[in-house]
Amino acid sequence: MPESSTSQSSRDRSATDLPSVFARYQSAVGNALRTELDGRSLPIYDTLRYYMGWAESNGTQIHGPEGKRLRPTLCLLACEAVGGNPEDALPVAVAIELVHNFSLIHDDIEDGDRTRHHRPTLWVIWGEPTAIVAGNNLLAVGDIATQRLQEAGAQTAVAVGHILTERYLSMMEGQYLDISYEGRTDVTVDDYLAMIERKTGALIEGSLELGALVGAGGSGEVVDGLRAVGDDFGRIFQIRDDVLGIWGGPALGKPIGADITRKKNSLPVVHVLEQAHGAERSELQRIYSEDEISPANVERVLDVMDGIGTQRWCQEQAEARWVRARERLNSLKLSADASRELLELGEFLLVREA
Amino acid sequence: MPESSTSQSSRDRSATDLPSVFARYQSAVGNALRTELDGRSLPIYDTLRYYMGWAESNGTQIHGPEGKRLRPTLCLLACEAVGGNPEDALPVAVAIELVHNFSLIHDDIEDGDRTRHHRPTLWVIWGEPTAIVAGNNLLAVGDIATQRLQEAGAQTAVAVGHILTERYLSMMEGQYLDISYEGRTDVTVDDYLAMIERKTGALIEGSLELGALVGAGGSGEVVDGLRAVGDDFGRIFQIRDDVLGIWGGPALGKPIGADITRKKNSLPVVHVLEQAHGAERSELQRIYSEDEISPANVERVLDVMDGIGTQRWCQEQAEARWVRARERLNSLKLSADASRELLELGEFLLVREA
Repeated sequence: MPESSTSQSSRDRSATDLPSVFARYQSAVGNALRTELDGRSLPIYDTLRYYMGWAESNGTQIHGPEGKRLRPTLCLLACEAVGGNPEDALPVAVAIELVHNFSLIHDDIEDGDRTRHHRPTLWVIWGEPTAIVAGNNLLAVGDIATQRLQEAGAQTAVAVGHILTERYLSMMEGQYLDISYEGRTDVTVDDYLAMIERKTGALIEGSLELGALVGAGGSGEVVDGLRAVGDDFGRIFQIRDDVLGIWGGPALGKPIGADITRKKNSLPVVHVLEQAHGAERSELQRIYSEDEISPANVERVLDVMDGIGTQRWCQEQAEARWVRARERLNSLKLSADASRELLELGEFLLVREA
Repeated sequence: MPESSTSQSSRDRSATDLPSVFARYQSAVGNALRTELDGRSLPIYDTLRYYMGWAESNGTQIHGPEGKRLRPTLCLLACEAVGGNPEDALPVAVAIELVHNFSLIHDDIEDGDRTRHHRPTLWVIWGEPTAIVAGNNLLAVGDIATQRLQEAGAQTAVAVGHILTERYLSMMEGQYLDISYEGRTDVTVDDYLAMIERKTGALIEGSLELGALVGAGGSGEVVDGLRAVGDDFGRIFQIRDDVLGIWGGPALGKPIGADITRKKNSLPVVHVLEQAHGAERSELQRIYSEDEISPANVERVLDVMDGIGTQRWCQEQAEARWVRARERLNSLKLSADASRELLELGEFLLVREA
């Protein structure tokens, strides 16, 4: 929970609720996503329908909630904000969500994670080789989705394809950096922020940028502006994710410190390892040099974080970006309704509890 | 060595030598490939420079032979054959080669192969997580390469991007099928051919198709014709590869039967498992049900293959496609020189010894 200048927003209970804009696009996005896999009958696509939350691992269809689809929502909202018809941006919105899920499938393998959203990960059920290929398939299906933009004019289609590829290459570079940091206790806050700017930020940035590009029918100041807002939103999203990974447990009925137990190099961990001094620093280095972190040591790390003010510092980093993004949103020429929804969404990213 | 109707070509010693067209494009392709990774300074790109044969694993540059670059050669030759300037197709030729190498990097992980071209594979040196991401990076760099085609007109660029993605999605589907066949002894010849049509065929088909598309400045009969020739070339290439995987050892100083020892589901193996009857069939099933195949059992499998005429049958399958491809090449309106080089190249694929 935020400790300082966001107290105003967190007292406003609705700011932590899912903004209504998510519901507005939910069914269009869900249908368009499913359509991309329709008619693809090889069993490999059943593994993808499972991963997307549309089927059990035995193929039985599920009709349940599917996650908030943050990236497609940002994309369609950006399109609307610049005066476009959000339906025109649907192929890109869908492509970005598929690319995002491709990255999660491979992340699960790379990190050895056995569950995601309380379900076994793809590699756990079907094995690593199949999971690698399944991820690749989803990336290609995502690329094919954008190619439906052709109707928006060949020039726009080429530009969108180019930018999407650049953004996901950047995302992949972030995945590489994340892997290369593993087991290290000397990763600086700057290193870490440069990594998440790519790993998480690039695709969130691309969501607003590409939605705006399609809506405006070409590049320009407002597209650049929304791209910059997307860069801020990506940073805010990941920092809040990192804060919740350590202090967000209670709201979900889980213990505090989950990401410490997992030895995850998240912003609070990188911050405390960088900021602790003297005996505390040596103690943290010793704790992190062991294969597993005991519950007592998790408590100890949390104590040092409390002493240094790590949670407050992290949230302040996110808030600084939020202030900047909000100013930019207010200065851009956007449709009034969409502008308000973007502000709601940005604040939600800053204070969300799940 | 071919046993039947190709004896004429195999007596002509030059048919097994690398056709001169490879040398003609070698330096342009090599330079253009390197350019795609130039200026990319994250260490992940060093793993790719290693894999492409331009550097040692410690980063030291190598200036040696780089493989024949079959797919770029086919692509540039198709462009020339329809009257285009091969330089125009260079971005696509490069993209296809990068995509091909992406697939090899992931194949090595999926199959647990520790060496390729006598060098340790990427995952052996840098670990699986880095190798997965490195492969993905190379795919994205390949996509970016095609986007340089924009100068060839947005419409052509969109069409090329679309077809390339469809071809590599098909390739990925073939990788999935290949994985799903592993450990099975009931894969039919038809199953196997449908798999290689995707896994190997799709990108070779795309090489001729996309080169022709760029050269002709759009789709049409000659593009469709060269695409069909590409489909045949892909089949011929893989069948010959499979034959060499079992009987090609001696020319390279290796024992016969390498792919039997590796328990690889290649065409000769699938053929003999399908065609053997009675006691021989039971014996083969027993041999293939064991974790490892002993040298004595490799000999036994080779004996049954000899009895059934598996090598001759495989080569005949390739020859049938070659006859068809040759007829089609002769019927298409192509530049005389390029047409002759395509015929030389096709015959080389049929009889090559390495």
